[in-house]
Amino acid sequence: MSTRDPYAEAGVDYTTLDAAKRRAVAAARATSSNPATRGAVVDDASRGEPATVVRVGDASYAFVLECLGTKSLIARDFEAVTGVDRYDSAGYDTVAAAVNDCCCVGALPLVVNAYFATGAASWYAGTRHASLVDGFARACGDCGAAWGGGESPTLSGLVVPDGIDLAAAVVGVVPAGIEPLLGGTLAAGDEIVLVSSCGLHQNGASLVRAVACRLELGLAEPLASGRLFGEAALDSGVIYVGLVEQLLARGVAVHYLSHITGHGLRKLMRADRELTYRIERLPEVPELLGFLAEKAGLSASEAYATLNMGAGFACYVAAGSGAQVVEAAEGLGLTALVAGSVEPGPRRVVLEPLGIEYAARDLQLR
Amino acid sequence: MSTRDPYAEAGVDYTTLDAAKRRAVAAARATSSNPATRGAVVDDASRGEPATVVRVGDASYAFVLECLGTKSLIARDFEAVTGVDRYDSAGYDTVAAAVNDCCCVGALPLVVNAYFATGAASWYAGTRHASLVDGFARACGDCGAAWGGGESPTLSGLVVPDGIDLAAAVVGVVPAGIEPLLGGTLAAGDEIVLVSSCGLHQNGASLVRAVACRLELGLAEPLASGRLFGEAALDSGVIYVGLVEQLLARGVAVHYLSHITGHGLRKLMRADRELTYRIERLPEVPELLGFLAEKAGLSASEAYATLNMGAGFACYVAAGSGAQVVEAAEGLGLTALVAGSVEPGPRRVVLEPLGIEYAARDLQLR
Repeated sequence: MSTRDPYAEAGVDYTTLDAAKRRAVAAARATSSNPATRGAVVDDASRGEPATVVRVGDASYAFVLECLGTKSLIARDFEAVTGVDRYDSAGYDTVAAAVNDCCCVGALPLVVNAYFATGAASWYAGTRHASLVDGFARACGDCGAAWGGGESPTLSGLVVPDGIDLAAAVVGVVPAGIEPLLGGTLAAGDEIVLVSSCGLHQNGASLVRAVACRLELGLAEPLASGRLFGEAALDSGVIYVGLVEQLLARGVAVHYLSHITGHGLRKLMRADRELTYRIERLPEVPELLGFLAEKAGLSASEAYATLNMGAGFACYVAAGSGAQVVEAAEGLGLTALVAGSVEPGPRRVVLEPLGIEYAARDLQLR
Repeated sequence: MSTRDPYAEAGVDYTTLDAAKRRAVAAARATSSNPATRGAVVDDASRGEPATVVRVGDASYAFVLECLGTKSLIARDFEAVTGVDRYDSAGYDTVAAAVNDCCCVGALPLVVNAYFATGAASWYAGTRHASLVDGFARACGDCGAAWGGGESPTLSGLVVPDGIDLAAAVVGVVPAGIEPLLGGTLAAGDEIVLVSSCGLHQNGASLVRAVACRLELGLAEPLASGRLFGEAALDSGVIYVGLVEQLLARGVAVHYLSHITGHGLRKLMRADRELTYRIERLPEVPELLGFLAEKAGLSASEAYATLNMGAGFACYVAAGSGAQVVEAAEGLGLTALVAGSVEPGPRRVVLEPLGIEYAARDLQLR
């Protein structure tokens, strides 16, 4: 990976954040057995995984709190330029971000809580809130979860007056008879299936806004297809829960799952294992992401280290099982391909078609 | 209640927010059975209660996502004025806000996830993050929960650069053999025990900052005791989980619990029941809250409708059981008093010592 960090230039310094994250994880780890007298314990093998796994008796629950990031600011800016309210997309993606993390450990979402923090009550004027609520509820339906409750504070002086900080918490359950997917069963020889994204999903919003500032028409800049830059950036993301549910129900030998968000395809080596992930085929790059990478001046190495570049979710399955994943995905209207395999070797990601390699030091989440 | 809303003057308009909250609750209610095929369903009787109750088989879980509000801005401003880092208090209170809500339905916290959203990575300079993490972990210990994980995004352009938006999600379990406390067993004749707060807790931070702006020394203004205004405002709140755990374990006939936060003592009529809550004795007002109410120019009616005024938590128990609650509280180092009782009559709160009455229309959370 290049030493230049284009994402830091857009205001996101992952090096500092990852260090703080590790400090918090260490403090959290010391508390894992606190609720033992209440019959529960956190599975420490889930530390650093996309969801916290809590064992309660024979059952395993997953617990996630996830933020949308700054995508709501794209909705704000797009509304200002075009008059079109796309807060439904922000609501949808808030749920998508959390439930896609939840299902990575093999847990199916049960209930989602909403966090809608505005900077001023004036935010609630117009259609925004109804639109946000619609998108949030629709996503709960699409992932099979209930919307439980949540919190909608006004944080004057903390959140910008015309902004909304969106997050969601989710509790999921691992189906009976299935062990949580925490990387332990990943093995050399496993096939890696990449399931397509439809665009930005929940990561890269800061970069979109930075690029929009440099374009003459900003978010109204047309892409080659004629769609507007902001319109495409506000496409709702894909929810992968239905696919995971089906793979588990069909008994497909799933060994690991990774939701490709921040850190782009570096997330392919998320598991705490010394293994090499070799990708021989890459999915098609969504128009929006190609445009974004080009206008941001990202090299291919930078782009794939930052954005999903068309790969929204990775399924690691036993050798020979990849085709079943592709079939299940296609049955759900998704696009997927057997993209590569897991090999013995140092922890790294190799993107063969592009001659790119990311080393273990490029992804330090623990 | 007065028509003047001093809180709105400090930037928090509860009327607009409560309306939006009701819209979200209605949308959420339609999704309660979504996860039925996964063996879970949201108990609709928990809609509008402090925690969402999810039934999974024979077990009942509670789920909360709660925000600290703007108390972190007091920590920021206090550090700027005195050089003293009290982000530990912000961390502690983030957990306290969530777990005190959780235990209201009779659920004991199992796992807490953290939401630390900064406006710039520069926030992480100095001791703040370590301090925040310490306070968060300490509160998890004090309530017997594990710290699971969470999210720590940098939200450039959304959160102010030197600010941090803090929230926590918690999953709790209702002990076996106990029904969730959702108001159904509240009855005329029940005794109301008020358990003392130690000051601001997690509500009133905007008002503190508004008042500080008008004081010559701001947060460094001394109170009568010699403590500084900001120092007292940053006292960590009380966690009531241990008390609830003990009441349930001892078989005390607890009928309802209310965490007194936003809306002050109007929260005494939180339950969705047509009952009158008559308070005959009030707890001592913490020095900080007396000072705050006075400097903000609040009438008693306004102050008790806005702040906890010394009553942090209310326990509604069968007639004759109040003394057991007081004894249990005192055994845990808390202060409590049998303050009044539940009566037949219209939904309202009567604070007899002050001649104040809040009508049902003053608290519309559903």
